[in-house]
Amino acid sequence: MTTVACQQLEPRVGDLAGNRELALSAIDAARGADVIVLPELVTSGYVFESREECLAASLAPDDLAEWGAAAGGAIVVGGFAERADDGLVYNSAAMVDASGVLGVYRKLHLWDQEKLFFEPGRELPRVHDTPHGRLATMICYDLEFPELVRMVALEGCELLCVPTNWPRTPRPPGEHPGEVINAMAMARANRMFVAACDRSGIERGVEWTAGTSIVDVDGWVVSETRAELDVARARDKRFAGLADAFGDRRPELYAAIVEASVKTTSAR
Amino acid sequence: MTTVACQQLEPRVGDLAGNRELALSAIDAARGADVIVLPELVTSGYVFESREECLAASLAPDDLAEWGAAAGGAIVVGGFAERADDGLVYNSAAMVDASGVLGVYRKLHLWDQEKLFFEPGRELPRVHDTPHGRLATMICYDLEFPELVRMVALEGCELLCVPTNWPRTPRPPGEHPGEVINAMAMARANRMFVAACDRSGIERGVEWTAGTSIVDVDGWVVSETRAELDVARARDKRFAGLADAFGDRRPELYAAIVEASVKTTSAR
Repeated sequence: MTTVACQQLEPRVGDLAGNRELALSAIDAARGADVIVLPELVTSGYVFESREECLAASLAPDDLAEWGAAAGGAIVVGGFAERADDGLVYNSAAMVDASGVLGVYRKLHLWDQEKLFFEPGRELPRVHDTPHGRLATMICYDLEFPELVRMVALEGCELLCVPTNWPRTPRPPGEHPGEVINAMAMARANRMFVAACDRSGIERGVEWTAGTSIVDVDGWVVSETRAELDVARARDKRFAGLADAFGDRRPELYAAIVEASVKTTSAR
Repeated sequence: MTTVACQQLEPRVGDLAGNRELALSAIDAARGADVIVLPELVTSGYVFESREECLAASLAPDDLAEWGAAAGGAIVVGGFAERADDGLVYNSAAMVDASGVLGVYRKLHLWDQEKLFFEPGRELPRVHDTPHGRLATMICYDLEFPELVRMVALEGCELLCVPTNWPRTPRPPGEHPGEVINAMAMARANRMFVAACDRSGIERGVEWTAGTSIVDVDGWVVSETRAELDVARARDKRFAGLADAFGDRRPELYAAIVEASVKTTSAR
């Protein structure tokens, strides 16, 4: 069994020292968990006003090795503004354990004004085979692209860790946030666990959804904070006796998805 | 504006005459709607016990032309067991108006024991440019394959008509059926309207969800029966100022989805 803890936090934009303490305290408070997920851009805050401000709040991946040291035997996944060797800044997430940084994923789909401050990633998320399951990372808006989620599931991901900053939008009474509904559907369609860790608070006028959700392979939210998951369940893709989420795919027909998208893009 | 009516019905397995009356009455009762959606296999019922029984309950597409005659100026989309020229039976849906049968779609993803009775389709859903919007059809379990939904959206579908028979499964209190959550997420991710018409009742021990839902481009259920939709909203794929459901895709990376799926399939 894998214990997953999502630590929903309220970082402050540009406050590197304060956010560092916030993340380390949250990691400490999650002791006993096997996998700890932190929000997107937890080290930097989100609502930047200039590229300079974003750059000033950026870190190198090695700066996050201390997350792993603080986590005991746990794996930590959390978001940061990544200052890359090429001088560009990416909206990234690191996967870290006591041995150091296991991997860095750079967000492929930049939401709205993020395009003004960050460089988009160029590589697909990797699936990491860990003692606590096969884990992959994507960030916030990435999860709204079912093609990407499917690819990661097909590569064997059992638990998808999703640092997010979901800006609050209106929803009908009694409904989950739309982003949570999407996370539920993505978990269900791929029979894969999803742990989405959101942030809280209001930053420069942007209110956050605080919609953290841990979703099981049937697509139900099992906790908003911490859950014990049998991640091996994600290896069985059967919906029913003769129905299988992967086996029933028609990849020979989906080939057209790439051509279709190119056509539509050029017609825009 | 397009008025869509979903006529959730309770057909009886094998009762061709009774189901014919049921569908025609429902079409008549929906008068004033522009698009009328009926359940999957509304002419035949669902829980077959043999291929012979399924064949005996099958129809040729032309048998459904009467739906269009009964519908006045409306377009009708509904499911039937299709007896094809090659002697095989498909789980199909016809799109019909007063001029006759506009198109027949054969379900690509057969659920569970459907595999024992039906031949799977071999062609992608077509998008029909109609006076009431750009419409496409898929059937029930098809909607659980986000690749297919995305392709239809990329081809310009504004209103996806989905005849379904959703078998009832347990869900936590207060939650939509999982299939509805999926429909909501698919509408939202593609900024496309979805009208899913389910069936009701219990047939040979199978209880149905009766989860009919009309979903708007933001992913919210706007009605379980009838709604007036501004289908042109589906042409604007923007989520926010600089965020666009189609424009933000990374098709150059999704190319790997086909290779990934082939790899996984052969590794099973």
